[in-house]
Amino acid sequence: MLADLEALARTPGDDESAEAVRVRAGEVLRPRGALERLDEIAVWLARWQASERPSVDRPAALIFAGDHGVAVEGVSAYPQSVTRAMIDALQSGIATASVMAQRVGARLTVVDVGDGVPCGNIRTEPALTDAQLQKAVAVGREAVAGLGEVDLLIPGEVGIGNTTAAAAIATALLGGDAGDWVGPGTGLDADGLASKIAVVRDAVSRADVTDPLDALSELGGWELAAMAGAIVEARARSIPVLLDGFVVTSAALPLELARPGSLDHCWPAHVSAEPGHRRLVERMGRWPILDLEMRLGEGSGALAAVPIVALAADAVVQVATFGEAGLL
Amino acid sequence: MLADLEALARTPGDDESAEAVRVRAGEVLRPRGALERLDEIAVWLARWQASERPSVDRPAALIFAGDHGVAVEGVSAYPQSVTRAMIDALQSGIATASVMAQRVGARLTVVDVGDGVPCGNIRTEPALTDAQLQKAVAVGREAVAGLGEVDLLIPGEVGIGNTTAAAAIATALLGGDAGDWVGPGTGLDADGLASKIAVVRDAVSRADVTDPLDALSELGGWELAAMAGAIVEARARSIPVLLDGFVVTSAALPLELARPGSLDHCWPAHVSAEPGHRRLVERMGRWPILDLEMRLGEGSGALAAVPIVALAADAVVQVATFGEAGLL
Repeated sequence: MLADLEALARTPGDDESAEAVRVRAGEVLRPRGALERLDEIAVWLARWQASERPSVDRPAALIFAGDHGVAVEGVSAYPQSVTRAMIDALQSGIATASVMAQRVGARLTVVDVGDGVPCGNIRTEPALTDAQLQKAVAVGREAVAGLGEVDLLIPGEVGIGNTTAAAAIATALLGGDAGDWVGPGTGLDADGLASKIAVVRDAVSRADVTDPLDALSELGGWELAAMAGAIVEARARSIPVLLDGFVVTSAALPLELARPGSLDHCWPAHVSAEPGHRRLVERMGRWPILDLEMRLGEGSGALAAVPIVALAADAVVQVATFGEAGLL
Repeated sequence: MLADLEALARTPGDDESAEAVRVRAGEVLRPRGALERLDEIAVWLARWQASERPSVDRPAALIFAGDHGVAVEGVSAYPQSVTRAMIDALQSGIATASVMAQRVGARLTVVDVGDGVPCGNIRTEPALTDAQLQKAVAVGREAVAGLGEVDLLIPGEVGIGNTTAAAAIATALLGGDAGDWVGPGTGLDADGLASKIAVVRDAVSRADVTDPLDALSELGGWELAAMAGAIVEARARSIPVLLDGFVVTSAALPLELARPGSLDHCWPAHVSAEPGHRRLVERMGRWPILDLEMRLGEGSGALAAVPIVALAADAVVQVATFGEAGLL
């Protein structure tokens, strides 16, 4: 199964489309380089949509939900039951991400990965068995496959306790002390933060991570493994991916470390207020589109960036060249 | 006329609506403060739309165009005729701002302020006579009045030579050396930059700026004075304003210095690659929504931020509170 993931992650981008858009960006009716960063996004979109006329007209958000055994350790300001309440709120359109998706014209689908069964408490045991990992990855892949026509994917998550899992993955794979990667999540106080750091330290010492992808089962959880599956499936289907915050990026990280370049079809939508996220984004080598100190999850930071990605493509594809405007 | 401007700029915001939105932002279905910056924008929008349910559904861009006498000094990488070509391109929908406006659902109107007559060459004479200043301000005010229902105004500009005017205004009003405020505009090389700095120094030494508003006629130009008029008219009509880049912000600056608080209904949409712009934005005391190194003008940076402002309002107004969701 993990071999499958690696194979999919090898799907190449379309260099010809990327080059065509890069050239056109230098010919459209504005001073060369005036929108250099947006042009860079347009070129990326062309490469991974495999289109000389990239556009964002059918964006889709998949919000993966999972319960975390580690929630019993008091690592969150909220009780575990909130995960279920947020699934309901997202599905009934009254949650933040639902409202944002509506505004930016994105479909939003909630995918309940663990069916309400918490994954293992990572402080003392692996989050997922091999069978559970396979199931979660398959759920993520099938969710993307079931979307039909999509030109931009926004994986998002809800899951009380999942910033603890994210920090554990980052610590195990990138090193440093747990304290470098742990943040307040939904709003822990100083005592809560210290205890969360201790939990992450214990989890990382316990975990047996020989291959980067082991981090998903050892330290991740249902929705993190599903997001990794979704990100890889998107690659195979020529769907560029906007990465939301700390949890999504941590779920994606094992793919990049297992095979560098696996996340080339992903762009960091924003940098969040969760301190570990900025470090992760810097590791990725791409600049985040927004820096608005958002720290919500639900894919909200990536949803907010959707219009910018759409504009970037339009500003190359729809704007006339000097030649087309008769100004050459 | 300048007394008129000052009077209009006194129109107060609606503190009750702002407070209602601030309170609701603390009650909606997410961790308190998770979208703190977006909430701040929602509160600002409520205050200046004078509505407890702020929204951005009818944004409008007014792109003011003017020719600059100072263009003969070689301060731009482009000839003056480009101003006219860009007016045509904007009107026929093939320019960058037209395409962006289409994507974000904003109406876009081009307002040709000087009818093709260049303002005075600020190196050697005032940009506008008193009569011309009055005309330009009136054009700006009438353009806003003629828009009908609008919930967010995007003033933008085209005018070869106008970053020279902007730098001259900033130097005259905020001090420092011209070199602190002059940037490459549409793409000057090092020699061009040195010569542009010399032109700004000459203009600022020549100009007689006793009142901050004098800077508009002494050092500004047609489209800058019109934008100042538009910004003040928006205040009187409860229309919040998104400020684009260096030229728009320099045109607004004299209002703030003449009467502090005059720009409270304005939010900096972005910080551009033009170095003087970041300083101006910092002086305003509000954080820019985007930081994408855009340097185009045409209102493009502000157009790109429109969806974020819309999302910020929706994320308070449309999202359920914990009470409404039955979670209290």
